[in-house]
Amino acid sequence: MPATVAQSPPAVVLNGRYQGEIQAVDQFLRFGPFRFACGKELPEVVLAYQTYGELNADSSNAILICHALSGNQHAAGRMPDRPTSRPWWDDCIGPGKAFDTNRFFVICSNVLGSCSGSSGPAEINPATGRHWALDFPIVTIADMVEAQVRLIDHLGIAKLLSVAGGSMGGMQVLQWASHHPDRLVSAMPIATTARHSPMQIAFDAVGREAITRDPYWHGGDYYDRTDKPDAGLAVARMVGHITYLSEQSMHEKQFGDRLNRDVGSGRTGRDFLKPEFQVESYLLYNGQKFPERFDANAYLYVTKAMDDFDLTQATGRLADAFRQAVDVKFLVLSFTSDWLYPSHQSRDLVRALNALGITVTYVDIDSVWGHDAFLLEPDRMTRILTNYLNGLAAGQA
Amino acid sequence: MPATVAQSPPAVVLNGRYQGEIQAVDQFLRFGPFRFACGKELPEVVLAYQTYGELNADSSNAILICHALSGNQHAAGRMPDRPTSRPWWDDCIGPGKAFDTNRFFVICSNVLGSCSGSSGPAEINPATGRHWALDFPIVTIADMVEAQVRLIDHLGIAKLLSVAGGSMGGMQVLQWASHHPDRLVSAMPIATTARHSPMQIAFDAVGREAITRDPYWHGGDYYDRTDKPDAGLAVARMVGHITYLSEQSMHEKQFGDRLNRDVGSGRTGRDFLKPEFQVESYLLYNGQKFPERFDANAYLYVTKAMDDFDLTQATGRLADAFRQAVDVKFLVLSFTSDWLYPSHQSRDLVRALNALGITVTYVDIDSVWGHDAFLLEPDRMTRILTNYLNGLAAGQA
Repeated sequence: MPATVAQSPPAVVLNGRYQGEIQAVDQFLRFGPFRFACGKELPEVVLAYQTYGELNADSSNAILICHALSGNQHAAGRMPDRPTSRPWWDDCIGPGKAFDTNRFFVICSNVLGSCSGSSGPAEINPATGRHWALDFPIVTIADMVEAQVRLIDHLGIAKLLSVAGGSMGGMQVLQWASHHPDRLVSAMPIATTARHSPMQIAFDAVGREAITRDPYWHGGDYYDRTDKPDAGLAVARMVGHITYLSEQSMHEKQFGDRLNRDVGSGRTGRDFLKPEFQVESYLLYNGQKFPERFDANAYLYVTKAMDDFDLTQATGRLADAFRQAVDVKFLVLSFTSDWLYPSHQSRDLVRALNALGITVTYVDIDSVWGHDAFLLEPDRMTRILTNYLNGLAAGQA
Repeated sequence: MPATVAQSPPAVVLNGRYQGEIQAVDQFLRFGPFRFACGKELPEVVLAYQTYGELNADSSNAILICHALSGNQHAAGRMPDRPTSRPWWDDCIGPGKAFDTNRFFVICSNVLGSCSGSSGPAEINPATGRHWALDFPIVTIADMVEAQVRLIDHLGIAKLLSVAGGSMGGMQVLQWASHHPDRLVSAMPIATTARHSPMQIAFDAVGREAITRDPYWHGGDYYDRTDKPDAGLAVARMVGHITYLSEQSMHEKQFGDRLNRDVGSGRTGRDFLKPEFQVESYLLYNGQKFPERFDANAYLYVTKAMDDFDLTQATGRLADAFRQAVDVKFLVLSFTSDWLYPSHQSRDLVRALNALGITVTYVDIDSVWGHDAFLLEPDRMTRILTNYLNGLAAGQA
């Protein structure tokens, strides 16, 4: 029962083109036992995934796409049975696009701990017949990747042509390169980091606080209740959305403009219930929609996985994480206006790779779109990715 | 009933020295009728204020200090009757300090709409005998300043030597200079802006959402209830605290460090209830303490006043706001790592003043402390402020 109602459609539409040319279908892989990094073992876990294009005869054209915090396995195409589901990277995956499904076999799976069909807190614990809620093991980026390795094994792929992803997807890319370099030709970490910074942790932590302080959260056991912690999840999402934008893009979107310049006479605090600025309307719209497609506990699990991610943990030196990855080719992308995953984090990564003599191409893409740029700059990214993949394919041939 | 409990004391103590050398006493000025910018008129309002030092014979040594969002009239000194009350600018106000109470008569009042004794939503509406809650008129920065004008009149001060303040305090300074330039010799806007940016509005808006979506907020009518919207207010405060810090200061404070590196075996989501990182502990501590001293509705009112502030509104040109202020001397301060009120906002202000030929001194202080720097850089600020005030006094003599 939100106290505030969005008055207008969102000022920014993400991924406007979602009527993909290709069809997308969910598939499910069940496997087990699966031992989590925390030591807990489950007899079986499930991964929901989709594939686009065809695997070639020698299985050399497979590209794994890794999704970000709120993403899922539906990266591209149209789902006939879920026509309102909006693929998050349809601009980059499809026939003739950057990840050209006429040439490549593209795979995307929902990460462990999330809520679009893969095992996570919102799924049923077979041992109890009830939702896992907080009894689900803590999930790490390493766990997400280990599950993806099982999926790639199942698909009969010895070596991926590439692993690509932005934000938390990029963390998975780095984990793949660090821990399974023999399974990759190339890695494409985009707008990401090898270790969450205090500021990144802080924003996630506030999101988690918004959820766990919602009285309807009930210690995570809200699945059988009428009232859900939707308000807390909405606030968490709004905090996130601010960090995905840039000051410049907010100005360009005229987010400082008032929806209603009538300051009228005799206004009281009752007027606080109506959004007054474009940016409020945008945040409200996106915050309120979010609980329709995302689970509050999953938000806790997945943000925690991001915060715990630290490839420098073993030795304190980032380069040490990639000592086994000397044969992996890296394409590192960042965006000039991304203040959540700022370019200097990518430069730190590039320096570490350089120190090992690893082949790395780095582009700091000039964009006003902030962190969202990895979703909103398909044209620039397509030029870079297409060139890079052509070069890779030529090198493989 | 917060779901999460802070496990350790805060990693940063703001305003560590709060045992001021001088004594502070609350005073109250009642006056009316008072007409708000929204058009609503109240028969009487009250301002809580404090003064430090002595007004000289010709009333030429008075300096008005304006507080920020969560501040109040207790800017300096020790309150015998409230020994735990912590003055927010004690580092800068007192004998021998930047605002030297041996030389100056320093005044600070609680802004209208706030909750430390001045009229606001948490006070009693005499007409009903109940708390105003959201029936209190919308408050603007202009209203805060008009009330301060009445206070200065009451104190018999024709012209202030200076008005100074950081953040929202700086907005009041700019409003004074724009609308009452004949009452000022100088103005010291610090880490502030003449118009809230979309990003500044966005962070405030999320804070308001956290409060108004708290089920215990009850449309603002929570004063007579047991459960208060403390959780929402705490989350709002945590969002604010992130924006007051800088990435660099978070690193220096080792806020990315784990409190507990034991990732143990068999961890589940139950562990989400314990803060894991220093930065979480800091945010939790400050978030949970905040409702003890601040009112949720007041947070709505005061942030709204900041978001509504726009000195460019009349003509779209900032310079037009200061056409009458050609005889006011400005000292503009910003801080290099302040990303919430970034230096370019102060530079915009300086350019507008330059365009009018107004005497302005601008210092972009090199600091790692982000927006909090105006509270945490007393030594650098003292050097600048002392010099500036000496020059002013010499000019007046």
